[in-house]
Amino acid sequence: MQRSSVLNLVTTKEFDQKVTVKGWVRTFRSNRFIALNDGSTIKNIQCVIDFENTAEEILKRITTGACVSIVGTLVESQGKGQNSEIQVDELEILGDSNPDEYPIQPKKHSFEFLRENAHLRVRTNTFSAVMRVRSKLSFAVHKYFQENGFNYVNTPIITGSDAEGAGEMFKVTNFEANKAPKNEDGNVDFKQDFFGKETNLTVSGQLEAETYAMALGKVYTFGPTFRAENSNTTRHLSEFWMIEPEVAFMDLEGNMDLSEDFIKSVINYVLENCKDDLEFLDQRFAQEEKGKPQLQRSELGLIDKLKFVTENDFKRVSYTEAIDILRNSKPNKKKKFQFPINEWGADLQSEHERFLVEKHFKCPVILFDYPANIKAFYMRLNDDGKTVRAMDVLFPGIGEIVGGAQREERYDVLIEKMKALDIDEKELWWYLDLRKFGTAVHSGFGLGFERLVQFTTGMGNIRDVIPFPRTPQNAEF
Amino acid sequence: MQRSSVLNLVTTKEFDQKVTVKGWVRTFRSNRFIALNDGSTIKNIQCVIDFENTAEEILKRITTGACVSIVGTLVESQGKGQNSEIQVDELEILGDSNPDEYPIQPKKHSFEFLRENAHLRVRTNTFSAVMRVRSKLSFAVHKYFQENGFNYVNTPIITGSDAEGAGEMFKVTNFEANKAPKNEDGNVDFKQDFFGKETNLTVSGQLEAETYAMALGKVYTFGPTFRAENSNTTRHLSEFWMIEPEVAFMDLEGNMDLSEDFIKSVINYVLENCKDDLEFLDQRFAQEEKGKPQLQRSELGLIDKLKFVTENDFKRVSYTEAIDILRNSKPNKKKKFQFPINEWGADLQSEHERFLVEKHFKCPVILFDYPANIKAFYMRLNDDGKTVRAMDVLFPGIGEIVGGAQREERYDVLIEKMKALDIDEKELWWYLDLRKFGTAVHSGFGLGFERLVQFTTGMGNIRDVIPFPRTPQNAEF
Repeated sequence: MQRSSVLNLVTTKEFDQKVTVKGWVRTFRSNRFIALNDGSTIKNIQCVIDFENTAEEILKRITTGACVSIVGTLVESQGKGQNSEIQVDELEILGDSNPDEYPIQPKKHSFEFLRENAHLRVRTNTFSAVMRVRSKLSFAVHKYFQENGFNYVNTPIITGSDAEGAGEMFKVTNFEANKAPKNEDGNVDFKQDFFGKETNLTVSGQLEAETYAMALGKVYTFGPTFRAENSNTTRHLSEFWMIEPEVAFMDLEGNMDLSEDFIKSVINYVLENCKDDLEFLDQRFAQEEKGKPQLQRSELGLIDKLKFVTENDFKRVSYTEAIDILRNSKPNKKKKFQFPINEWGADLQSEHERFLVEKHFKCPVILFDYPANIKAFYMRLNDDGKTVRAMDVLFPGIGEIVGGAQREERYDVLIEKMKALDIDEKELWWYLDLRKFGTAVHSGFGLGFERLVQFTTGMGNIRDVIPFPRTPQNAEF
Repeated sequence: MQRSSVLNLVTTKEFDQKVTVKGWVRTFRSNRFIALNDGSTIKNIQCVIDFENTAEEILKRITTGACVSIVGTLVESQGKGQNSEIQVDELEILGDSNPDEYPIQPKKHSFEFLRENAHLRVRTNTFSAVMRVRSKLSFAVHKYFQENGFNYVNTPIITGSDAEGAGEMFKVTNFEANKAPKNEDGNVDFKQDFFGKETNLTVSGQLEAETYAMALGKVYTFGPTFRAENSNTTRHLSEFWMIEPEVAFMDLEGNMDLSEDFIKSVINYVLENCKDDLEFLDQRFAQEEKGKPQLQRSELGLIDKLKFVTENDFKRVSYTEAIDILRNSKPNKKKKFQFPINEWGADLQSEHERFLVEKHFKCPVILFDYPANIKAFYMRLNDDGKTVRAMDVLFPGIGEIVGGAQREERYDVLIEKMKALDIDEKELWWYLDLRKFGTAVHSGFGLGFERLVQFTTGMGNIRDVIPFPRTPQNAEF
């Protein structure tokens, strides 16, 4: 008989049918009730054993984490909060799980402990819910772009260019450590390395994506990017996935429209397609918030926060306006900000971004037209000569979730900027070519996927929304 | 007025409307006809200029590669093979393209030359078609798995384990070349490197995907993988994208079913959704084949080859049967194979695989139950003690496109195998845990995405189906 998924069994109304189900025991109580899960849903199917006619030998082996195959009759459940249950006819133990050794017991484990068991933590309710939402969210990303005429572009992971300056890079090499060959001058001879030059792991696919936008019109990347920075925070990973759309003939206004429409669309997709998982995560979030001091608690529940984003217009505010608001704000005057805002030109911190979103505007905010000298070289200079067409999308709880810009499409302006910043033209000859041959206005943004998963699932630590997190001193599994 | 896409303009039947279109000039002939492309389709929209009333200055600047914005009236075309054209009212040059400098002229360029201009080659018909098909194909992959209850898993790119043995690995480090710190013994002190140990770029996400399959049931990866091998062939890249589904409770039979259904589904998706691009590529393929000696020519056209796959059942043949067929085959007896097949246990080469598919069975073939000693340690041992539950899917033209297996789920058998092959248990403690706690039959396969794109687009060199190929001595852009 073909195996039914637990998802199917807990939702179907076709009762009194014979079914086969396979999965892992979550709990076994009263020597009678197995809560069985197979990963297809956060819900367990209750399997009721006729324990009087089941060998003691078998009953003993029904432990948390054990894998079993069950044949039985699906019946309507009398129990509260469940649709159906199985009256078990046959039970086979496929894989034992010694309760004295199995790390994942039916009790609350700390997230630190679970990170050390990242190969098993996805067998818990919380992590299976997070990872199912992550999967759906990534599909929503592809779906949105594909349905809107974008082409997916796989930009390179190993890169010979280190000119983008988005962050510290990891080196990629074939040389044995301390055994790199030298050239006549006594320097390391990178010509003998695998790629014939120094190579790194990419920090962003944007520059390469621009080359494709200037041919295919609308493109997006969605792939891994890397930062070799020693950041041990709840918001940073050394390896994370980034989404970067890039569109020809689109200015900053269009870029803001796109980011807002995109984010609302993918969150709506998850609201519609991950109901059970989100309900569970909503409760988990509420409980975690209860444990926090009143002042640090989120004013909104998880699902409320998602609706806060999908149902509100994103408020668009220039950097200059934002600085005025912040300078005159209560927390600034009362010196409550860790970084006081005194003058135009200051780089905004997470505390300022969250103030604007959570206290002042009470909706997601898009800041634009930032001072040129706190933003990247490729952003389009405004006529004022001191601001660039940059934008950041700010969210409740996490601050910046999107950073984007209209790109500098004018060859002369770009090359001046590169000279001023000492960026080697020869490194970026191909990027400059885009401005030499058929240049056009174009824009795009970057969104760190794990930040979006964090926001959507309410998980406090970014290490808990990616299967096997890479952080300083940690590359286990 | 909002910009219309060329795709919309060449398909709509709403004539005599005012439209705005922006794109790049492909050709400009008779001082009158612009073939304009914006990447949304392989087709160009013909824009007809009233050249008598257009300044000489402007006409000169309408060159191949220039970017223009056009306002005009969309009218039904009288020309053969085109739906519509634009009578131009206004034309603005957005970006010039100096014809003496622009590398992509309207003539046939060699693929080698275009690889050196990978940032511009996507502005040609061939590469824009290939990259649009690639994008659609990758969406088809996600769509298939998501609609069939699979969860997308992002397995790590940087890995501390080198136990899988699928190939040579690149090193990832933060140490300056030849300046790695040493420990007391005088050896390199990897504890001081970024991750506190030696790390590499992944060759496969399979082992990590197995951990997720044993919790979520059905999962798949789709991400970049790496090989530090000095292979300069038309079938190998140093960086390529791999698809790896992994399913709990699925045996080899189910694995064969899944691979066949999956491949047919994604190719059908492309047949339905990339008609114009495939027609172009079909003609390109036919022309390229014409240039080959009779014997090397493909018997089937490109679209015929795709239908050959979607419309035929995949023939399932054991390795042992295949060896018998090959041993008794004409080319073997006439010593036409470069590698003669003499006995059971031989590793099959591409020439043998293609013989089976193209000459003997004349349909895609799945070989299974390979000798244990030519396959990986994690494949499930058959009762005969000498074969494993491995499978390879073989395709016309390219040979192996999928490699998969039922995994060894028995702790004792697996650990014996690892010992025999000298694989460190401590490296793979987490992989062994899966067999210790709730083990179950499970299977999966790997499919090199670029091989699939090659097959689908008919491109002869794998470097021409990925935007920026990485190969030995080459990491430009």
